[in-house]
Amino acid sequence: MSQREQTALQARLYKIIFGTDTPSGKWFDLALIFAILISVGVIIVDSLADVHRDHGELLQRIEWGFTLLFTIEYFVRIWIAQNRRAYLFSFYGIIDLLAILPSYLAILVPQTAPLLIIRLLRVLRVFRVLRLVGYLHEANQIAGVMRSSWRQIFVFFSIVITIIVVFGCLIYVLEGPNNGFENIPVSVYWAIVTVTTVGYGDVVPVTPAGRAISSMAMLVGYAIIAVPTGIFTANILEKRQRDRTPLNCPQCSRAGHEEDARYCRHCGSSLRTDSDD
Amino acid sequence: MSQREQTALQARLYKIIFGTDTPSGKWFDLALIFAILISVGVIIVDSLADVHRDHGELLQRIEWGFTLLFTIEYFVRIWIAQNRRAYLFSFYGIIDLLAILPSYLAILVPQTAPLLIIRLLRVLRVFRVLRLVGYLHEANQIAGVMRSSWRQIFVFFSIVITIIVVFGCLIYVLEGPNNGFENIPVSVYWAIVTVTTVGYGDVVPVTPAGRAISSMAMLVGYAIIAVPTGIFTANILEKRQRDRTPLNCPQCSRAGHEEDARYCRHCGSSLRTDSDD
Amino acid sequence: MSQREQTALQARLYKIIFGTDTPSGKWFDLALIFAILISVGVIIVDSLADVHRDHGELLQRIEWGFTLLFTIEYFVRIWIAQNRRAYLFSFYGIIDLLAILPSYLAILVPQTAPLLIIRLLRVLRVFRVLRLVGYLHEANQIAGVMRSSWRQIFVFFSIVITIIVVFGCLIYVLEGPNNGFENIPVSVYWAIVTVTTVGYGDVVPVTPAGRAISSMAMLVGYAIIAVPTGIFTANILEKRQRDRTPLNCPQCSRAGHEEDARYCRHCGSSLRTDSDD
Amino acid sequence: MSQREQTALQARLYKIIFGTDTPSGKWFDLALIFAILISVGVIIVDSLADVHRDHGELLQRIEWGFTLLFTIEYFVRIWIAQNRRAYLFSFYGIIDLLAILPSYLAILVPQTAPLLIIRLLRVLRVFRVLRLVGYLHEANQIAGVMRSSWRQIFVFFSIVITIIVVFGCLIYVLEGPNNGFENIPVSVYWAIVTVTTVGYGDVVPVTPAGRAISSMAMLVGYAIIAVPTGIFTANILEKRQRDRTPLNCPQCSRAGHEEDARYCRHCGSSLRTDSDD
Repeated sequence: MSQREQTALQARLYKIIFGTDTPSGKWFDLALIFAILISVGVIIVDSLADVHRDHGELLQRIEWGFTLLFTIEYFVRIWIAQNRRAYLFSFYGIIDLLAILPSYLAILVPQTAPLLIIRLLRVLRVFRVLRLVGYLHEANQIAGVMRSSWRQIFVFFSIVITIIVVFGCLIYVLEGPNNGFENIPVSVYWAIVTVTTVGYGDVVPVTPAGRAISSMAMLVGYAIIAVPTGIFTANILEKRQRDRTPLNCPQCSRAGHEEDARYCRHCGSSLRTDSDD
Repeated sequence: MSQREQTALQARLYKIIFGTDTPSGKWFDLALIFAILISVGVIIVDSLADVHRDHGELLQRIEWGFTLLFTIEYFVRIWIAQNRRAYLFSFYGIIDLLAILPSYLAILVPQTAPLLIIRLLRVLRVFRVLRLVGYLHEANQIAGVMRSSWRQIFVFFSIVITIIVVFGCLIYVLEGPNNGFENIPVSVYWAIVTVTTVGYGDVVPVTPAGRAISSMAMLVGYAIIAVPTGIFTANILEKRQRDRTPLNCPQCSRAGHEEDARYCRHCGSSLRTDSDD
Repeated sequence: MSQREQTALQARLYKIIFGTDTPSGKWFDLALIFAILISVGVIIVDSLADVHRDHGELLQRIEWGFTLLFTIEYFVRIWIAQNRRAYLFSFYGIIDLLAILPSYLAILVPQTAPLLIIRLLRVLRVFRVLRLVGYLHEANQIAGVMRSSWRQIFVFFSIVITIIVVFGCLIYVLEGPNNGFENIPVSVYWAIVTVTTVGYGDVVPVTPAGRAISSMAMLVGYAIIAVPTGIFTANILEKRQRDRTPLNCPQCSRAGHEEDARYCRHCGSSLRTDSDD
Repeated sequence: MSQREQTALQARLYKIIFGTDTPSGKWFDLALIFAILISVGVIIVDSLADVHRDHGELLQRIEWGFTLLFTIEYFVRIWIAQNRRAYLFSFYGIIDLLAILPSYLAILVPQTAPLLIIRLLRVLRVFRVLRLVGYLHEANQIAGVMRSSWRQIFVFFSIVITIIVVFGCLIYVLEGPNNGFENIPVSVYWAIVTVTTVGYGDVVPVTPAGRAISSMAMLVGYAIIAVPTGIFTANILEKRQRDRTPLNCPQCSRAGHEEDARYCRHCGSSLRTDSDD
């Protein structure tokens, strides 16, 4: 194969594998998502004791088939990538590698077989399907609001984790190892179970003082969920407001004006050319 | 009965059975809702072991009475429907059929008796009561916002289910079959119980690593509930805004008037061309 | 005591007992709340087995003291009420009666002693304290929004209860009496525990099919909490908007104009007397 | 050391210990947060039975090292504080004292050793880190909204606690001590577990009547979470609105400009008197 043919093949494969707008790109995406879901399904089915006993051999062979398929796909991706280093160290590049490594590792060290489950992370490629069905705008909106809420969510979680640690230590002192609160990590685990209102019931307070502290932890957890909800709601409303007014100033070309603005709030020039007042 | 009498009867029955604005239509709706609730009540009461032993025979006869009643109603509905095919394959048409089929099926195949419970789906006709009490506007508003939130809720659930599957597999590797996480489906079930903050406690982590992963799953589940809430709140606010501002001022062409506004709040000119005051 | 003295006494007592603005009225309210809380505290403490054994006699005597006190208060309230019938059949009038009746009933029928707990409902009078501390505005705002959300919350609960009944019946068919789902009422109880994300774990699915249905019920319950939250948030925002613009039109004296309105949206007359544009 | 040298040293230490803007102040803050986290980590690790048995001696010595370090820090803070009394009785001043007292108390009264856990409260100083990473604005925003929501949250909790007490007493009468509801405090604990949707499952209703009341408690708890969420969301939106609109246009006196607006969006005149562009 000449250099030129090779480049042409690379370009063609690039359109199929990395592209999403062409029909062939869409078909490849669909086929890939399908293959990932089946390979994950095989792992899930193989985890059932009955099925493993009866069909373990067959399923293992199918798994090896997917490993080979994904290995080929991985090397093709490296070969055709415009920036190989960028792909190798990108989020999906690392996941693609992690998805195939455990199978080969298991040949050398059989005990690492359960790591095969890492392949499951390939399921994240399924988000590609959102682009296929045209839901990318919604996904981007949610992602955008999450990104802009990041700092507030971080602060909120600092507060929540401090509350959880304090409640965990309080219950450890009040209930102690005799009532199942063996040590502080277990007590903090209990506090997380309680404040998030999950409430397994595997570790529960039995003394009146412990139950009083639990009650406070529950009420706090019940009420502060309002904080991230309020922040996220306010941020999503703000983002939509900003998205809804894409009007650019003809003078300084900055966007983000409110709906009823007549003059640019940055440079003061009129936003309306036709005299509509 | 002449053809004309028949048509007149059909028209009269149509007004009663399908109509909702006439007094007779309202009475029929009320009677139907009442009959559905009683027939469902009979099934529920019959499920109690004591009652079934003592009054099983009687309850079965009442159930047969309702089956006959609903059968008659079904055939009358077919007979009078303006578009029979449309009714037969409509949502309620299928439910009406499913509500009576199991009783007849149980004569041929006695083991299918529990399917009688499908009749319960007729309870969905109860939503008709919302129209009767004049709450249809509220129901439509909620339904409308849900429909317009559909794409975002779909994206949100894609993310949630991916998170759930990843957590389920992680816990399966960390805890394993010895601690109750028998296979991946059970582990995913545990992940759903945890992320939705239900927390039955039937399958719980016992190793420190498993508890650490659980804690993360709980905190994630606790926090991301903010996402659908924020989206739904923003959509309901947007819908109300839109409902409120359907018209532009004919003088200054600005929109944003409240539903009951008669005059433009910017320039004071009348918003209604027909003199309706 | 002459008729006139009696009337004057009634008026004075009325100011103290029903009034809230005078210092004596506030002191009476405080004393009453204090008495209610102590009488409830006595009942709670008496429910502890140890305390009942050691101090049961004493506590019973204190309870009788409160019964006599509340009986006197009840008859004074009747005596001084401007509209006796209205008080007798008002919400608080019935609670005041229910709070003292069980004690007397227990003399005749000793088995009714536990009904004494009804006295606890007097605790609702504690809301009077909100007026004392000046939090009445906040309470009224919440109550107002709840009242205006009533219809939507009703529709929401119709949907939730239908979902719960359907899930309850599904799990009854799938799991059956052998797995703890003894009858439909128990299954519906399980569905409520699941959809509201409480998750006691006293009744849990064990079959794969039952767990799949449970997972759906959990995800539904996790997601639809967004609906009442969204509705309530939208309603509170709307109410505040309306409260914030108490400006009345000088012409037709209707309120509810938006913040930046210049002309009344009902009659079109200018809302601003000074020419500020 | 002369008086002057002493004052200079005090001023230098003040900048380091209380200051946050200088590099040395930031380094001190970082070192302090690091020391607190390690000292807390030592307490947590020491609570593990295995570790305590093997390394208890060593950990105790490290704890003593931190006690001495924090004691020195405490006295230096007192020495350099501009207003000593204010620091001693400030929130952090009391926590700083409480963090070291238990260690010394344990020498005199060995049984008080578990109180060492109080040192954990020093973890609250970690919030200082928010200033370091520049997240103080977000923390202040959340704190500001919480402060302005305080009255409404208080009213909401009055209602919730009344509901909880009423449900707790109802279940006590309906289920009674034989089904685990030993006394009213336990029943109220159950009500809190239920209404906050935690649902441990350690105390659960078993009679049909008790389950019916539980179901109501769950539905109430599930729905009223909308109230604090709605209030908080409305307050955060209002606060942002207010933050955004602090100024009126000098020309047309209309408010509602965004934070970074330079020109009025209604009349186009400059909003800033000093020419800062």
